[in-house]
Amino acid sequence: MRWMPLLALCALSLFTAARAEDGYDLWLRYQPLEKQVIARYGAVGTSVVTGGHSATSNVTRDELVRALSGLLARKVTADDTIRRDGTVLFGTPANSPTIASLKLPLEKLGREGYVIRNAAAKGRKIIVIAGNTDIGAMYGAFRFLRQIQARRPLDKLDIVSAPKVKLRLLNHWDNLDETVERGYAGSSIFNWWELPDHVSQRLTDYARANASIGINGTVLTNVNASALILTPDYLRKAAAIADALRPYGIKVYLTARFSSPIEIGGLKTADPLDPAVQAWWRNKADEIYNLIPDFGGFLVKANSEGQPGPQDYHRSHADGANMLADALAPHGGVVMWRAFVYSNEVPEDRVKQAYSEFVPLDGKFRDNVIIQTKNGPLDFQPREPFSPLFGATPRTNMGMEVEITKEYLGFETHLVYLGTMWQEALQSDTFVKGQGSTVAKVVDGSLFGNKLTLMAGVSNIGADRNWCGSIFDQANWYAFGRLAWNPDANAEDIAGDWVRMTFSDNPAFVKPVVAMMMASRETEVDFMTPLGLAHQMGTSGHYGPGPWIDNVGRADWDPVYYNRADKDGIGFDRTPTGSDAVAQYAPPLAKTFSDVATTPENLLLWFHHVPWTYPMKSGRTLWDALVSRYTQGEASVHAMAATWARLKPYVDARRFAITADFLRIQERDARLWRDASIAYFQSLNGLPLPAGMAPPAHPLDYYESLYFPYAPGQGSPNRPIRPPQKAPDAIPPLH
Amino acid sequence: MRWMPLLALCALSLFTAARAEDGYDLWLRYQPLEKQVIARYGAVGTSVVTGGHSATSNVTRDELVRALSGLLARKVTADDTIRRDGTVLFGTPANSPTIASLKLPLEKLGREGYVIRNAAAKGRKIIVIAGNTDIGAMYGAFRFLRQIQARRPLDKLDIVSAPKVKLRLLNHWDNLDETVERGYAGSSIFNWWELPDHVSQRLTDYARANASIGINGTVLTNVNASALILTPDYLRKAAAIADALRPYGIKVYLTARFSSPIEIGGLKTADPLDPAVQAWWRNKADEIYNLIPDFGGFLVKANSEGQPGPQDYHRSHADGANMLADALAPHGGVVMWRAFVYSNEVPEDRVKQAYSEFVPLDGKFRDNVIIQTKNGPLDFQPREPFSPLFGATPRTNMGMEVEITKEYLGFETHLVYLGTMWQEALQSDTFVKGQGSTVAKVVDGSLFGNKLTLMAGVSNIGADRNWCGSIFDQANWYAFGRLAWNPDANAEDIAGDWVRMTFSDNPAFVKPVVAMMMASRETEVDFMTPLGLAHQMGTSGHYGPGPWIDNVGRADWDPVYYNRADKDGIGFDRTPTGSDAVAQYAPPLAKTFSDVATTPENLLLWFHHVPWTYPMKSGRTLWDALVSRYTQGEASVHAMAATWARLKPYVDARRFAITADFLRIQERDARLWRDASIAYFQSLNGLPLPAGMAPPAHPLDYYESLYFPYAPGQGSPNRPIRPPQKAPDAIPPLH
Repeated sequence: MRWMPLLALCALSLFTAARAEDGYDLWLRYQPLEKQVIARYGAVGTSVVTGGHSATSNVTRDELVRALSGLLARKVTADDTIRRDGTVLFGTPANSPTIASLKLPLEKLGREGYVIRNAAAKGRKIIVIAGNTDIGAMYGAFRFLRQIQARRPLDKLDIVSAPKVKLRLLNHWDNLDETVERGYAGSSIFNWWELPDHVSQRLTDYARANASIGINGTVLTNVNASALILTPDYLRKAAAIADALRPYGIKVYLTARFSSPIEIGGLKTADPLDPAVQAWWRNKADEIYNLIPDFGGFLVKANSEGQPGPQDYHRSHADGANMLADALAPHGGVVMWRAFVYSNEVPEDRVKQAYSEFVPLDGKFRDNVIIQTKNGPLDFQPREPFSPLFGATPRTNMGMEVEITKEYLGFETHLVYLGTMWQEALQSDTFVKGQGSTVAKVVDGSLFGNKLTLMAGVSNIGADRNWCGSIFDQANWYAFGRLAWNPDANAEDIAGDWVRMTFSDNPAFVKPVVAMMMASRETEVDFMTPLGLAHQMGTSGHYGPGPWIDNVGRADWDPVYYNRADKDGIGFDRTPTGSDAVAQYAPPLAKTFSDVATTPENLLLWFHHVPWTYPMKSGRTLWDALVSRYTQGEASVHAMAATWARLKPYVDARRFAITADFLRIQERDARLWRDASIAYFQSLNGLPLPAGMAPPAHPLDYYESLYFPYAPGQGSPNRPIRPPQKAPDAIPPLH
Repeated sequence: MRWMPLLALCALSLFTAARAEDGYDLWLRYQPLEKQVIARYGAVGTSVVTGGHSATSNVTRDELVRALSGLLARKVTADDTIRRDGTVLFGTPANSPTIASLKLPLEKLGREGYVIRNAAAKGRKIIVIAGNTDIGAMYGAFRFLRQIQARRPLDKLDIVSAPKVKLRLLNHWDNLDETVERGYAGSSIFNWWELPDHVSQRLTDYARANASIGINGTVLTNVNASALILTPDYLRKAAAIADALRPYGIKVYLTARFSSPIEIGGLKTADPLDPAVQAWWRNKADEIYNLIPDFGGFLVKANSEGQPGPQDYHRSHADGANMLADALAPHGGVVMWRAFVYSNEVPEDRVKQAYSEFVPLDGKFRDNVIIQTKNGPLDFQPREPFSPLFGATPRTNMGMEVEITKEYLGFETHLVYLGTMWQEALQSDTFVKGQGSTVAKVVDGSLFGNKLTLMAGVSNIGADRNWCGSIFDQANWYAFGRLAWNPDANAEDIAGDWVRMTFSDNPAFVKPVVAMMMASRETEVDFMTPLGLAHQMGTSGHYGPGPWIDNVGRADWDPVYYNRADKDGIGFDRTPTGSDAVAQYAPPLAKTFSDVATTPENLLLWFHHVPWTYPMKSGRTLWDALVSRYTQGEASVHAMAATWARLKPYVDARRFAITADFLRIQERDARLWRDASIAYFQSLNGLPLPAGMAPPAHPLDYYESLYFPYAPGQGSPNRPIRPPQKAPDAIPPLH
């Protein structure tokens, strides 16, 4: 195809261009740069040279050739030696004498770091991309391409980078029947039926995208796990995926259902202290590594929301995790043990439980175990304080799990950039070793000297052509990778890179879009759960407002449990007069959060139950401030939609349209959230709205009657289908 | 995008070409023709002119411009008048004075027919594409493009065509949760969650593909229906789909769950003779037509496999269908009432039931009801005789339903071209009005003078990028449309067109691929169900062999019910000495099928129970012939794989690879089918294999222990998951 006559190629492009912008290419579009940028780059990228011959070298070379050909709109060739100015040389000191001779500062960069420099070799000006391994060089190549995609100078390159976090993993909540729990982008990309006999091209493109942002592992299966994945035929399927991902430095991990020895092993127990159980897992690990020599390890959700676990046998989480860790240790595998556990009995405060469960176990886990803790103590809410587990277990490896898929943030149809949310969590100061003891330093291991470190992101990826269900949700996948590589990276810089790579370098576009993204999470908080509220979503689907819900079946799944609103006030008292969850934070923070006056207002109702008349810093009452927040949130969505409409000239029609449509949905939903929340709280407190604020469009019972059947991605085979009750419409129509 | 500088376009194409061949473009790829073909066409297609201003005119113009630009590798423009030789003028006598002046033979072509001719106008040589309506002209435009895609001459055009069948419909078995029953191509293309607020581009491309083959309607929802689709919010979603499809001449239909008046209407009954029920459906029809003015009508599966229906109230199928028909009649809608019914009590012979149920009702259905009958009397088996209902109800509209999705033919991973199977059914002679009373003449209405005629195809479409799960399954979608337009069309011609449009015009490629396709269905019959066997698949999933299965829960779901094999013989006696199903055919056929000597050998075991030693026409015993058939089937798959391997130079890498992978799966499965079937039947008859025939690779219990968990597309939320039993592998590995 590459050698077709020029005319034919051009004609072809007339057609393919017409459907090119479907989002499949993500931030790796490699469209031609502006003429003046290409001119400025001069001879750079004329040819690509490597001394490597590994699968990784090959895919790196192919990526550079493909990318540079596209970006620079010229024929770029792979060459076997340096012949021209502008050659891009990549490799390692071991496979390239030229790289070895350059004495690059590679010592401290480990196996994944890289150096990018201008250099002279064989009488030519070249660009050298070097790592200690082919994987490092590959990461360098993607970093170099980002430099070009963002139109940055290439004449004074001196980039040195290595990841601060060892395991940078996607967690797929993908089921073996190809549904995706909390997925909003179609079915799973893992076609278990066709695997291992056919491996889709999509898996290679998935690997490319992940490699480009430094993701080095992927958990293929849902934490609500099926034991079937550990049967021989499914392991062969997983091995075929591992083979496809391996050249890109991505290891495969699986979720281990704790009761597997019973369900597929024929044992009577899964007790982690039972020798037969231990032997079963050792044999299973041997079997897995025989098929997948570089298998990463297990992710486990145990004794949480009905999943089996060691507590079924009166053993501790450490007993369970260590048993699996011992089975994996001979092969170099790890266990990621989720801290997201809460009792089947409803306790006084659900957010305290992970801490209560794991802090006493500090120091009892094997070296190849890492506890995987959600960023906040509850469950991926639009805003939570950071989880107090970060910093509380100095002798335990502690990784962070964030949710890339927007389970609680409007699914694929709301525009919410999560980089700011994760940055907020990572830059939170735990104070456990004095000021500056940020969560990021726990996660990157520097605070306590952990070697095994982890950032895990619950994937938002599905078989939709655009991968994520929306174009802007691609930014969250992208930002996750960048922050996992460097938890101290800046969310705004990341957004800027993503916009330039995905859309355009035009400042008239980049500036307003980045501004929109940067404000988007706060906007979502404002119209959903302002001032520290949480878990106010409709139950099960987690879409749409439900602050009145009080009948889910257990108290701590009910929104009323979290808002505690009544005639007099609102909020959850977590001070010593209440649940005392504040005591789980280091003393300086516990003090700050215990005092309603020093608690940040954006977390006010998380920590305090306060009267509706409580005076805010602005001088307004809490009620007035709350209504203003909701109203502000809605207004901000309208502003986003207006901004996007104005940017139409800078975007292709397809990606403009899907984003515009989704922003209209978000406008409707923001209004719905605002009105429903105000209607409910007003029904309790009977207070008038602040002057100038519009009343809800409908009475409360209208909002209470709305339902959202078939909300996608719930992943349950038995989704509740409620027939329409009072309201004629499931969702208010836009038109 | 279209006006980007040439250089940029070319560079772009370097990249996009690399991922272009993912199958999304189907047979509408519009890649540049060979230079000499373009040269031969000369000035043709320089510009496109129409007098029409409708949405249909606009999409037709855009399609012509896009296609001609691609195919002819030149800039093609839409113009407002004829200025150049080679202009393509399309339209109607009403919107084009030029067309009116040409006095084309449009009288008998109805609203969907067209004429394509060379003509002279305004001193120019032009090509004119004319219809009585814009829809007719659109069909003509796609027909004209096919002429070019197949490199046929354009200088002596005189094409006149009109569809022989009025309703040419896809039936989607798509559920509202976006799973697809018996779908093997990912999730549903209908995103009910985002609809109506966002309508995917895919729906427009779906409409284009359907329009290009003459499909003029689509049933959006599963025949195992949910009443929710008839609630207001879902109707609004359906209306948004209708809006997207309307310009392409495609009407939207829905499945009506018979119990809807109870489930969403609050009534206590769905009795079709109850005035409140009748009123409910009338009001529902009014509501639908208010949203979708050209709504097509209802498809109903009633009193079949657990679906509710009029018999629940001791009313007849005619009572039920007529009640719905009366509700739709004021708006011009139709009811398609499925004949696929069988009693909940197991009768003497399941294949007799549709006939027994519907023949007595002949003449009792409204004019706007059409009975939708599967091609065979059982259920979409690799081979069945035609259903005896065709020809048996002269006073009833009778449409044919075929299954495009390969539920019983190896899913997406087997290469089976179904054009030959459908042609075999359509060209079967019913003899009901003497020789030549083909099924096709029943279906096109000519035998009995029906005006309402129908071909329905159960869709094989999903959200997979290539639409159908495999490239070759696209041919079945294509062939269905062509045969629905003209049930007397030739399957080989259709295969040839499809290959040329989808892959290449090179005879070195076309000839062997068409030959492979033409033989593929017989090959599948041979290794699965030779000599008239049927329903030997594993239950539930319908994948893989299960001739021994005798415990599904009701006898006529068991493979042993259909093969009736024992120590002495095999086959289902449907002669007067048996179930006498032969009596449902016209006397000449009943006589033929009653006599084992005159029954075609490919239906032998469908109609007769015969001893293993029965002498076949070849002189061999039945047992020898049966084993030979299985063996021949397996050998033919190996031959297909070898053919495909040889054709590698003619195919792009991506489409070559997926087809090669799938053929390897089919080779494995053919071996599995052959060996498992022989092992089972040999376990009954104890006979030796014919000389030179390989014995099964494993003992029978190995085959009996195989299982296929998570087979895709079963569409049931409660798929049975059987843990591994005896065999270590669910599916034997290829490697």
